Amino acid sequence: MTTDALVLDAAAQDLLFREARTANTFTDEPVSDEQVQAIYELVKFGPTAMNQQPLRVVLVRSAEARERLVNHLGEGNKAKTTSAPLTAILAVDNEFHEELPTVFPHFPGAKDYFAGDRDGRVASAAMNGALQAGYFIVGVRAAGLAAGPMTGYDAEGINKEFFADGEHSVLAVVNIGKPGDNAWYPRSPRLAYDEVVTTV
Amino acid sequence: MTTDALVLDAAAQDLLFREARTANTFTDEPVSDEQVQAIYELVKFGPTAMNQQPLRVVLVRSAEARERLVNHLGEGNKAKTTSAPLTAILAVDNEFHEELPTVFPHFPGAKDYFAGDRDGRVASAAMNGALQAGYFIVGVRAAGLAAGPMTGYDAEGINKEFFADGEHSVLAVVNIGKPGDNAWYPRSPRLAYDEVVTTV
Repeated sequence: MTTDALVLDAAAQDLLFREARTANTFTDEPVSDEQVQAIYELVKFGPTAMNQQPLRVVLVRSAEARERLVNHLGEGNKAKTTSAPLTAILAVDNEFHEELPTVFPHFPGAKDYFAGDRDGRVASAAMNGALQAGYFIVGVRAAGLAAGPMTGYDAEGINKEFFADGEHSVLAVVNIGKPGDNAWYPRSPRLAYDEVVTTV
Repeated sequence: MTTDALVLDAAAQDLLFREARTANTFTDEPVSDEQVQAIYELVKFGPTAMNQQPLRVVLVRSAEARERLVNHLGEGNKAKTTSAPLTAILAVDNEFHEELPTVFPHFPGAKDYFAGDRDGRVASAAMNGALQAGYFIVGVRAAGLAAGPMTGYDAEGINKEFFADGEHSVLAVVNIGKPGDNAWYPRSPRLAYDEVVTTV
């Protein structure tokens, strides 16, 4: 019923939200760099505060890198990550403010605003990076792929292993591919509209 | 070129990302509760860690509530918020863990895991609430509406004004409606694929 209030066609609604699910198994079908680039070129337009773009994506493709990553994952996340066609580390660059003169040129003071406030910068990177991560997951689904985002890992371990500069913080690790056999659990409950939305 | 790698049709890509823009002016056309509910019923399915659903949405509809909100906004955000058809406060409930036995029943210890760690809970609410905010903004666009998310405000002031329990934190304030005259600035630059995505 409420679907009629949307402009997005029903097939796209299903693809992005209704039928898309967090996958725990995948087929062997590879995920190409071209697919990842197409996802990025779409979702890069998602809005953030001051056009901040702290999100960084590390595609873990080599067996050696995958082993280094899996070592930092919780037990329940190891096997599915080892067998996924592609695993992406989503992280934020806490030095994102260096790019503000380029990406937000009409507020020349933006870089300096953040330069002197590391705590504020880290919080802003986390907030806007998570917004971008949400867009990225929608983009994975727009490519006809399933995402399996995980947060069960040793974050400090991943940060040190993959970001030697000490200025990056992992947000999520996401397996990507076509869903395999028994790819998902039954859908867990969502809060009702009236539990989430109020009017004043 | 890269668009061919996506399954989502081009019209939907345009609606959600390519042609959608952060709006600063709006027409007078109202935004109905039915539209907001349709948005929620779609984007509630977006994935989060442990199916956490910390996002709360306050629809600011009365003139009295709008004035209370505008008082806490930065100068540049006041006029456009006063004239928007609808303004929504997106916030997180830092007590979201109370719902985990219902929304994540297969991990009975989830509530207690967060109950003893307020800092971890607040960080988790911020991260997962921002993911949900990203889905919500996509949903606003799916309804054929423009979103104008803002973070220029006195966050503590809004928290106290609208969430008397002290357990909610504002994430963003979002004007919603059909774009009006000169609704947006020229699009600011996005980082190139190679600046964001690396392979290991």
